[in-house]
Amino acid sequence: MQHVSEFRVRYGETDQMGVVYHANYLVWCEIGRTDLIRALGGSYADIEREGTALAVVEAHLRFMRPARYDDLIRVTTRVTEVRSRVVRFDYEIGTDQGVQLATAYTTLVGMTRDGRSTTLPTALREGLERLCTPS
Amino acid sequence: MQHVSEFRVRYGETDQMGVVYHANYLVWCEIGRTDLIRALGGSYADIEREGTALAVVEAHLRFMRPARYDDLIRVTTRVTEVRSRVVRFDYEIGTDQGVQLATAYTTLVGMTRDGRSTTLPTALREGLERLCTPS
Amino acid sequence: MQHVSEFRVRYGETDQMGVVYHANYLVWCEIGRTDLIRALGGSYADIEREGTALAVVEAHLRFMRPARYDDLIRVTTRVTEVRSRVVRFDYEIGTDQGVQLATAYTTLVGMTRDGRSTTLPTALREGLERLCTPS
Amino acid sequence: MQHVSEFRVRYGETDQMGVVYHANYLVWCEIGRTDLIRALGGSYADIEREGTALAVVEAHLRFMRPARYDDLIRVTTRVTEVRSRVVRFDYEIGTDQGVQLATAYTTLVGMTRDGRSTTLPTALREGLERLCTPS
Repeated sequence: MQHVSEFRVRYGETDQMGVVYHANYLVWCEIGRTDLIRALGGSYADIEREGTALAVVEAHLRFMRPARYDDLIRVTTRVTEVRSRVVRFDYEIGTDQGVQLATAYTTLVGMTRDGRSTTLPTALREGLERLCTPS
Repeated sequence: MQHVSEFRVRYGETDQMGVVYHANYLVWCEIGRTDLIRALGGSYADIEREGTALAVVEAHLRFMRPARYDDLIRVTTRVTEVRSRVVRFDYEIGTDQGVQLATAYTTLVGMTRDGRSTTLPTALREGLERLCTPS
Repeated sequence: MQHVSEFRVRYGETDQMGVVYHANYLVWCEIGRTDLIRALGGSYADIEREGTALAVVEAHLRFMRPARYDDLIRVTTRVTEVRSRVVRFDYEIGTDQGVQLATAYTTLVGMTRDGRSTTLPTALREGLERLCTPS
Repeated sequence: MQHVSEFRVRYGETDQMGVVYHANYLVWCEIGRTDLIRALGGSYADIEREGTALAVVEAHLRFMRPARYDDLIRVTTRVTEVRSRVVRFDYEIGTDQGVQLATAYTTLVGMTRDGRSTTLPTALREGLERLCTPS
């Protein structure tokens, strides 16, 4: 089970090398996991409003080919680990033409408003578990 | 009375035209006014913690020459209008070599935590008034 | 004649005030004019590859209400002035619910690869002129 | 041998969680390695002008505590691997008060203007080798 997000590279995401600046791939990963959570029937905005944020505690990126301005980007997101307080997402980032650009994963922890780690909301955790396919 | 901020252009601030992406000049203006407020003896972070944010309600930018990666940028900030709820800052953005790159102004309004306009904190307003030189 | 672009607010576009950081509206304006140019039958990426960039020389923004994370944003872009080297775009930025958030305009100049002003490519200029509705 | 960079958190670097958005740490790592290269006696801008870019091919980040607006950030950068085409940097990101916020590493490859991998310029490679302390 996976989720696919699609969007175009913005001009401001490029740098003077003529390709997308590498930090933007973390922004794209976030679009991927947000869309996946929305497809579960909730929205990350609601989850946060109800008091639990998901804070990134680890991120890893491997860059294969550069993305360019105006490319149609496809982010494929999978849930690869769910524990009571922790969820991991794996990402494949490519173009709509099937060219693979990068892979990544991020690990996130449930966080209360005052910054302490906490369990994931039950409905979210159950939804994520249904999608989970260990990497 | 004016305040000068200085910093280097970051790589991620460039775009594929080989120059700084225009939206970043608004970020630089913010560095300018934040530094000016700090020089008044407070800090914008404290002002916000005490309950009043300054929200940008208008911005204008004129771009003359492009900034490039690694340039040393100098932002000269002046207070050009202070009213009970409103403050305007004018900016000159150039290099350390004296090349003029852009001019700008932004108008900001005091804002409560729940998003209603409010008067500027008294100490801040008095400090800004002392520096004010109408444009 | 106008063009409408739609996209969601990204998490990284918010700031600690809980709303979208103001500099991002310039990024959104660029999405608006890029989509308008694509609807003309070309693409801005191609125009730049053929040697003419469009550099922003002036920008003005008026902020009415804040955009929030996950809002569906609608940017309505119009061409309001076309001259041999210059084009102006006007923008209305709102939500899909019809709430008006901001208005803006940007003026752009044709630019050669070595940074000198030049005329707009003929096909682009003619396309823009057909859409032009002075403000 | 290591290099220390220091700068303040910008407002636009925060997100609605009230802390720095995680993608910005990659920008900070870049400031760290750019400053280290400048301390070697060259500048990354010159290296790129002479035809060799350094492209990030891998990045890893571990986030311990959040950075906040206006914090004084200290990035400590070390060279931990140098090969003919590859260099790895390790980073410790903390505050000026000694609070550790994050650790990271990035691996970069020499790249020609047309996007093929190439050897690092000799002067740069020798400078990096002098600083190299395997992790």
